Amino acid sequence: MSNPFKPSQRLLLGPGPSEVYPTVLEQMSKPLLGHLDPEFLKLMDELKLMLQQVFETGNPLTLAMPGTGSAGMETVFVNLIEPGDKVIICVNGVFGGRMADVAERAGAEVISLQQTWGDVFAPEQIEEALKKHPDASMVALVHAETSTGAWQPLQEIADLVHRHDKLFVVDTVTSFGGVRVAVDQIGIDAAYSGTQKCLSAPPGLAPVTFGQRALNKIDQRKHKVQSWYLDLTMIRNYWGEDRFYHHTAPITMNYALHEALRILLEEGLDNSFQRHALHGKALQTGLQAMKLKLVVEEKHRLPMLTTVYVPDGIEDMAIRQSLLNRHQIEIGGGLGPFKGKAWRIGLMGYGSSRENVLRVLEALESSLLDQGFSLKQGAAAEAALQVYHAAVI
Amino acid sequence: MSNPFKPSQRLLLGPGPSEVYPTVLEQMSKPLLGHLDPEFLKLMDELKLMLQQVFETGNPLTLAMPGTGSAGMETVFVNLIEPGDKVIICVNGVFGGRMADVAERAGAEVISLQQTWGDVFAPEQIEEALKKHPDASMVALVHAETSTGAWQPLQEIADLVHRHDKLFVVDTVTSFGGVRVAVDQIGIDAAYSGTQKCLSAPPGLAPVTFGQRALNKIDQRKHKVQSWYLDLTMIRNYWGEDRFYHHTAPITMNYALHEALRILLEEGLDNSFQRHALHGKALQTGLQAMKLKLVVEEKHRLPMLTTVYVPDGIEDMAIRQSLLNRHQIEIGGGLGPFKGKAWRIGLMGYGSSRENVLRVLEALESSLLDQGFSLKQGAAAEAALQVYHAAVI
Repeated sequence: MSNPFKPSQRLLLGPGPSEVYPTVLEQMSKPLLGHLDPEFLKLMDELKLMLQQVFETGNPLTLAMPGTGSAGMETVFVNLIEPGDKVIICVNGVFGGRMADVAERAGAEVISLQQTWGDVFAPEQIEEALKKHPDASMVALVHAETSTGAWQPLQEIADLVHRHDKLFVVDTVTSFGGVRVAVDQIGIDAAYSGTQKCLSAPPGLAPVTFGQRALNKIDQRKHKVQSWYLDLTMIRNYWGEDRFYHHTAPITMNYALHEALRILLEEGLDNSFQRHALHGKALQTGLQAMKLKLVVEEKHRLPMLTTVYVPDGIEDMAIRQSLLNRHQIEIGGGLGPFKGKAWRIGLMGYGSSRENVLRVLEALESSLLDQGFSLKQGAAAEAALQVYHAAVI
Repeated sequence: MSNPFKPSQRLLLGPGPSEVYPTVLEQMSKPLLGHLDPEFLKLMDELKLMLQQVFETGNPLTLAMPGTGSAGMETVFVNLIEPGDKVIICVNGVFGGRMADVAERAGAEVISLQQTWGDVFAPEQIEEALKKHPDASMVALVHAETSTGAWQPLQEIADLVHRHDKLFVVDTVTSFGGVRVAVDQIGIDAAYSGTQKCLSAPPGLAPVTFGQRALNKIDQRKHKVQSWYLDLTMIRNYWGEDRFYHHTAPITMNYALHEALRILLEEGLDNSFQRHALHGKALQTGLQAMKLKLVVEEKHRLPMLTTVYVPDGIEDMAIRQSLLNRHQIEIGGGLGPFKGKAWRIGLMGYGSSRENVLRVLEALESSLLDQGFSLKQGAAAEAALQVYHAAVI
């Protein structure tokens, strides 16, 4: 360890962390402030305002928790669950499964609804569960399942959940900034995200937002929140007007998040959503032109994360190692039932660009050819370019 | 928010975050790697080796948790406590009090030993508690109380705790890297720290180490660890040979910690301890030459954090605002019984230097004079310089 660490320059097109905006990296080298410095408190105020814009909410309790996306998940469940609460969790991938695990550790009786990985939940399935468990306090699901690439529609389910007077909790880790997360309009009572997906900052903070119904639940708690570190009854005083010291905020990560949100809002939410949609479409079209099969059916396919089956006769790791070592591109492997059977290609935030779509398609094509896979050279890029041409017209 | 955030250049001489090494800040702008990239896994291996050197331990379970120091504290308690366990917590400041709170939330019956803030615990007090509570599973205390500046001797208490066959848990957030934390020699079963004190990296990671006795307790758990995010039974597989994915590690913060540890080990632990001791002595001598009174008696005074009483007739905030706004120096205010009554001056890691000692003494002198405090100009700096001259001979 006599020399400083020198990481290689990778192109991060996996399920996250994603490509980081150059000015976000620059901001991380800025001088440190104390966590109670008036300048830092002003930064926190601006962060809150910008997070509210991206969550499309007026929720006063909107802030960045001092941990990665999973800490955001845990924040929501430890604060909204009291021992013995019954909660309905929708599981159609790794992150739904993790929600169930976290909720159970928080003392909940978990009703786990299952759906095929890669599919989404239909309102009818949720309604059946709500009728069967009138004493449940919450329904939680994943907006963008990072393990499958499935895009869960929210509005009808949100309406159902509220008709039954339950809290509606949504995991927006991968969707936030890449597709619309309209918290107030949809009626999401609590949501959490991460910095390392469509915000294009390094991992290390978890944006969260809580609406009035969720706050009521917190205010009526009979037991202390089981986690001191994630206890919002204390943390909201640090982010609020009183500025009570709680923990030492990860200062530099807050600089990074500030810059990432600034760039996103400067681009404009709608422009960002359109950009993610376009490049996602181009990538997916290119992959199909290579005769590869996508996991998720078209209408529920996420733009920022595409899962594609490893074709017969091809070894998962051989391709991923070729991409990483020869092309400096990272894509993700499959999880759970998709382990060894699918790849996950992310086009998130700064990473979502025409250049990257073409680069990953060409690298994948060349790696597949090396492994003896039969395909028509250049067909993928050509198909992707047609998507771009059609979009311009 | 149309412009990037531009923090002022402060001199951070409070209780942390501390001054950051320039090359640590530089490392944070390095390109991001994925959390399963072979290069990042190598970085984790090196981090583990370097953390073991600073903790002076061979403990295989030595790693950096993805949160600030308080997340390190919570990691130790949620993993080592099962519901109903009785634990003895020594409270002589804010952080002892926080340990009791965290342990209780983890389901423990907490026996809280109290000591005057600014004092330390005597072995006899611990022994009495051990005899009174033979069914306790753990004794926990704070090595360097950041709220008071008291330096707790460990060896005799460690021996006692082990004679009674209990686990010995130590908070080393502020001591780590600045004074010796000889985990194996002393017999510490679990310890945690932070990056933003004597390591001089930004806040955001929590080094932890667990010995065999602590591991046995974890292995014999009957209940799942209540926190998914901090569950070592899973996290050790990510840091171990299997490299199972758990959470997305805060990549950039790991670069920062790597560089900070590298600098510390290049200087040498003993050199770092001597440097902290020298500059702490010079500061404390200078403050006393200004006729200010220190909170902690000499033999238990920490070198990296000095608490000094606000003199009669002087207003706490007026001085701290003058230091911050006119001299760009941050020092800390008092906590708990010391609120408004004491200042906390940190000389941690990169911040522990002759230049900074003289700068803060002069700034404090000038701010006190402005507020009408009567003192002999230049006396503080002169007294500090005498400490340096004596040290050279």
